[in-house]
Amino acid sequence: MRYACGVEYDGHGFFGFQTQIQEPTIQNSLEKALSSVANHNVKLTCSGRTDTGVSATSQVIHFDSNSQRTEYQWIMGVNSNLPKGISLLWLKAVEDDFHARFSAMQRSYQYVILNRWIRPAIGRHNVTWEKLPLNAEKMNTAAQYLLGKHDFSSFRSSICQSKTPIKTINSISVERINNKVIMDVAASGFLHHMIRNIIGTLLPIGREEKSVESMLEILELKDRTKAGVTASPNGLTFNTVKYPVKFNLPETTIEDHFPYHYEK
Amino acid sequence: MRYACGVEYDGHGFFGFQTQIQEPTIQNSLEKALSSVANHNVKLTCSGRTDTGVSATSQVIHFDSNSQRTEYQWIMGVNSNLPKGISLLWLKAVEDDFHARFSAMQRSYQYVILNRWIRPAIGRHNVTWEKLPLNAEKMNTAAQYLLGKHDFSSFRSSICQSKTPIKTINSISVERINNKVIMDVAASGFLHHMIRNIIGTLLPIGREEKSVESMLEILELKDRTKAGVTASPNGLTFNTVKYPVKFNLPETTIEDHFPYHYEK
Repeated sequence: MRYACGVEYDGHGFFGFQTQIQEPTIQNSLEKALSSVANHNVKLTCSGRTDTGVSATSQVIHFDSNSQRTEYQWIMGVNSNLPKGISLLWLKAVEDDFHARFSAMQRSYQYVILNRWIRPAIGRHNVTWEKLPLNAEKMNTAAQYLLGKHDFSSFRSSICQSKTPIKTINSISVERINNKVIMDVAASGFLHHMIRNIIGTLLPIGREEKSVESMLEILELKDRTKAGVTASPNGLTFNTVKYPVKFNLPETTIEDHFPYHYEK
Repeated sequence: MRYACGVEYDGHGFFGFQTQIQEPTIQNSLEKALSSVANHNVKLTCSGRTDTGVSATSQVIHFDSNSQRTEYQWIMGVNSNLPKGISLLWLKAVEDDFHARFSAMQRSYQYVILNRWIRPAIGRHNVTWEKLPLNAEKMNTAAQYLLGKHDFSSFRSSICQSKTPIKTINSISVERINNKVIMDVAASGFLHHMIRNIIGTLLPIGREEKSVESMLEILELKDRTKAGVTASPNGLTFNTVKYPVKFNLPETTIEDHFPYHYEK
């Protein structure tokens, strides 16, 4: 039986999603908890890996198990075996052709910049601090050059494993809410470090050190060395993943009250 | 010369405000940083102490120093000497009759309850988790019994040092925003653990285990053993302090962009 799950995590305190030499990671924490409940070794697949320090409000994973557990038993068991920075929000049996990564149609991220001259104390692990005033309207205008299908080589990390630098951004916006400047972006998929490199290019535009049009020039140059530095992972949150309706997955957000109904 | 300062801190990672055996506290961290910039031993007074785990968006303190520093030098120097969970938001020279505690006319606190059946991962240190559904309207109705001048003995911790159990609540409200239930309360002053004991009494009313009217009965009994358990300090934030207009202190909130203008 294949299962899909929604996972919330605070990136602070983990060495990113993927299992590697440094521990803990989100993946090894989840696999340990799932294996413990399944009573066999569980391997999972996620919709998209996140870097060290990046949080997620609704990452989606899938795994296979033939252990006889109700959805309620899975979710209570896994959560009681997870470290405090990770919560399983929902779990659902799905058809075998569901794949957390390959079935995903769209991924949405949010990047939050605290824009004030004093550094943050409260919530400092989940924002990037910029002390110089940002012009969020100019950042938003510049970001619109990225909308649609483009070769994003200028925003691609050198270790990116994607087959192609061509991706499609379905929506992108930069908005000021009080002292926060927030970018929301949704795309079919992203290159490695693509969002952090976009932010690194938008910040000098926001500080009015570079022109709004510089974004278009950088995009067209298809040259990573022309874009801005990679911005901090703090402030980046993986929000939602869209899948075809036929899989009938719960659409949850971090604002949900009781995300899904389980029979005890 | 007397100085007033606004301070933001994340209560997680500190043993409360007041200097005591266990370190670090907010007070000893601030006094070390202030002493380092002043180049002499600085003692501070706060508008109101906070418990371990309680955060503040705008705590106010005062201290005395005759060291020759501009306001800009004080604020930059102190922030670079503070641990990451504490930020000095503003600093201002004030008349000698200003007293952070005795001049304060009103203190405002906020308490945030995350009300969903899955425990929080992101932001978990700044919310209290309640997994059973809460009726926020009933909690709000019950809270209105506390409005005005009352003997709050039922909500007073046994180690409270206040001369009198009589305090005046100027405003109190409980409101649901998505999966959060938020209490805002402002009073001339509070007894030790008063807000956490009020929340501990409101929670069973929200879960509909106790009646709305039970709040009035508990208030009138003036007996700590009749009220609810002391709720968690997570979720409690000290927001603002009001002082007489004559002191001309900056009115800052956590949403401010550049809270105060300093000449370099």
